Parts: sequence; structure tokens; C-alpha cells
Amino acid sequence: MYDPVIGELVEELGRFPGVGPKSAQRIAYWVLDADAEEIEQLAKVLVEVKRRVKFCKVCGNVADDDLCRICRDENRDPTMICVVEESKDVIAIERTREFAGRYHVLGGAISPIDGIGPDDLRIHELLPRLADGQVREVIIATDPNLEGEATATYLTRLLADFDLEVTRPASGLPVGGDLEYADEVTLGRAMAARRSSAGKAGVE
Amino acid sequence: MYDPVIGELVEELGRFPGVGPKSAQRIAYWVLDADAEEIEQLAKVLVEVKRRVKFCKVCGNVADDDLCRICRDENRDPTMICVVEESKDVIAIERTREFAGRYHVLGGAISPIDGIGPDDLRIHELLPRLADGQVREVIIATDPNLEGEATATYLTRLLADFDLEVTRPASGLPVGGDLEYADEVTLGRAMAARRSSAGKAGVE
Repeated sequence: MYDPVIGELVEELGRFPGVGPKSAQRIAYWVLDADAEEIEQLAKVLVEVKRRVKFCKVCGNVADDDLCRICRDENRDPTMICVVEESKDVIAIERTREFAGRYHVLGGAISPIDGIGPDDLRIHELLPRLADGQVREVIIATDPNLEGEATATYLTRLLADFDLEVTRPASGLPVGGDLEYADEVTLGRAMAARRSSAGKAGVE
Repeated sequence: MYDPVIGELVEELGRFPGVGPKSAQRIAYWVLDADAEEIEQLAKVLVEVKRRVKFCKVCGNVADDDLCRICRDENRDPTMICVVEESKDVIAIERTREFAGRYHVLGGAISPIDGIGPDDLRIHELLPRLADGQVREVIIATDPNLEGEATATYLTRLLADFDLEVTRPASGLPVGGDLEYADEVTLGRAMAARRSSAGKAGVE
């Protein structure tokens, strides 16, 4: 169908996540139309990111040095650690501007089916960070799915021996969603964790 | 939000057509996880496609040589030329396997608003291809929108002086679509161009 020269490009682009054959074709023709310099810049950035990217020695987040931008930042609250599965979860939480502490990136979640156990995650690296007693709260923000819940349960048990608060983000109705379309687990949790409509405190 | 090393990549990827900030981020993290060799290969293909790509001297289609794959192919019917706006339209028609002739890629459509007139398109290059009388039919398969229709009208007038048949692909209901959702122009054309349900010939 394609001339070989463009067929190879369509194939390469089609390996991107979320990019099907049609999108790959569209991007390939965009590349043909683009300035040569622009594409050389893109190619350079692609290769360079692979060369330059490191992972933070403390939290495991993507970094361009030994420490990531957040672990280097002395304005971040050193008493809170938010545990997430992946670096992209750090971005998602940073975007909310609700959390000023530091992170710990596990590099995945416990998943027996995929043969991923606790030892395959950066759980071992979390414990020394809690040793000096400076951290007062660990927020376990793993994905709200089977693997994420299993990981959260494991971590909660593991951290029970430490003198700190272990919390999880609230489950509930997504803002802007329709109540009738919420799945029953989400709606059930939202009902159980209902809050006083007058103040901000939860109904205990 | 991002570490600079990945922020630049997200930005570059976000310039792809149809790739928004979220998709760009997803692809960027995929790049971080991918093998370095894999990404170097992609970068190489990107740069190479820009270096190697040419445009067919006869039809204007994307090519890796002076002539494109279709103009080189001696099994293609030399009596038919299908005029399209872009190289990607060639791919779309090739995919149907309904056309065995050759193509002529205009490189766009007449659009006074964008300052594109007939002289900005490869219309001048079409006429010599019709000079020897071998071509018996020209199918004008420009996009079914304002610019495409204007271009088709212009070409139809231009080709009226030549001793050949000038045709256009049928307008009508999209296969698999709902009649009630068809726009009135499409439905009107489909009604006007109705065919005998017994045979394949149109009702004249």
C-alpha cells in the first residue's frame, strides 16, 4: 500500500501507545510535510531523553540527575510521602496542587498473574526513608484497581509497625459525573464515606 | 510539572496531529520504558524518511525514487487517471482495491480564503499526461467539501476540451450508516442518484 520509505515510518509510529494505524498514517504524512530541521530536532530529543533519563535514587521518580526535581526541592514538606505506582502518577498528583510532600514510586503494583510480587517493587527502598521518624504520614495512592488495592493492603500491613499515619485518597463520586452512572462499588464507598454538607469534616 | 528532560519530549510529541497533551505524555513515558535501540531506530527512520522521500515526477505522489511505486508498475491501467488532493488519498483509494489506473496528486485544493489558486496546485502537470490520447477517463476524486468541489468544478471545465470521459465518485449514503442521520445534501444526492435494486445500473 505505502511506498516502503513511508511504510516503515507508519509501522514505527504505530507502536506508540494509543496510536492506531490511521493515526500513525496521519502522523507520518505530517512528518513528510514538516521542516527537516523540526524532525531532526524531534529525533534528537527522542534519543537524548533515553540517554539522559535517570531515576531518582531516593524516590524512584524520573530524574535528570541523581535526585529528581521534587526530592531536590527543599520547600517540599519532608513529613509526608505519597506512594504511587508510576512516575506518571506523580505528574497526575502534582497537577492537582493538593500535595506538597515527597513521593515514592514503586515501579508497578503487586500482580501475581504477571508474576510481580513485593520484591519486584521499590518497597524495600521505602523503609529507610521512614527510619529517622521525620515522616509523619504515608499516603498510599496506588491505582484503585485489583493490583493497586492488593499493593495498598500489603503496604498498610507493612507500615503498621511504624509510628506514622497511613492514609489513602478518598473513594467517591467523580466530580462532574452522573450519580446514576457510577458503578455500585464507587457509589457504595461514596455513601459510606459521606460528609456533613455543612462543614468539611467526614461523618464519623 | 515534568522534569525538563521529559518535558521537552512531551512538547515535541504534542505537535503531532491528533496527539493532545495526555497522549503525548503517555507516549513519552512509553519512550522512557522502551529499549534504547528501539528508540534509536525510530529516530533514524524519522530522519531518514525526510532525507529519502521524493515526489513522483509524473503524478506527484510520495516516492522513494523519481517515479512512485504506482507509476513504475506496468500492470496499472494506463487509460485511467484518478485526480486526488493528497498522497494520503492515494492510500485510501488503493485500500478499496477498486481502482487499477494511475493517480495525479494535486497537492491541495483551490481555496481562495487560504490564497490557494489553480496555479498553486499540480494542475499544469496534469495536462501533458493527457496529450497523447492514451488516457480515456479522468476520475476527479477531490474531497467532498467546499474546496474539493470548487477544484472539481475547475478541473471539469478545464478538461471539457479533451476527448475523454471525466467522472466523479458517487455521492450517497455511507455503507453501515443510518439513513435518519445522513445530512440532507448527502441524502438528497443519494435519492437523485438512486439505482435499480434489481441490477447494478443507475436509474437514468
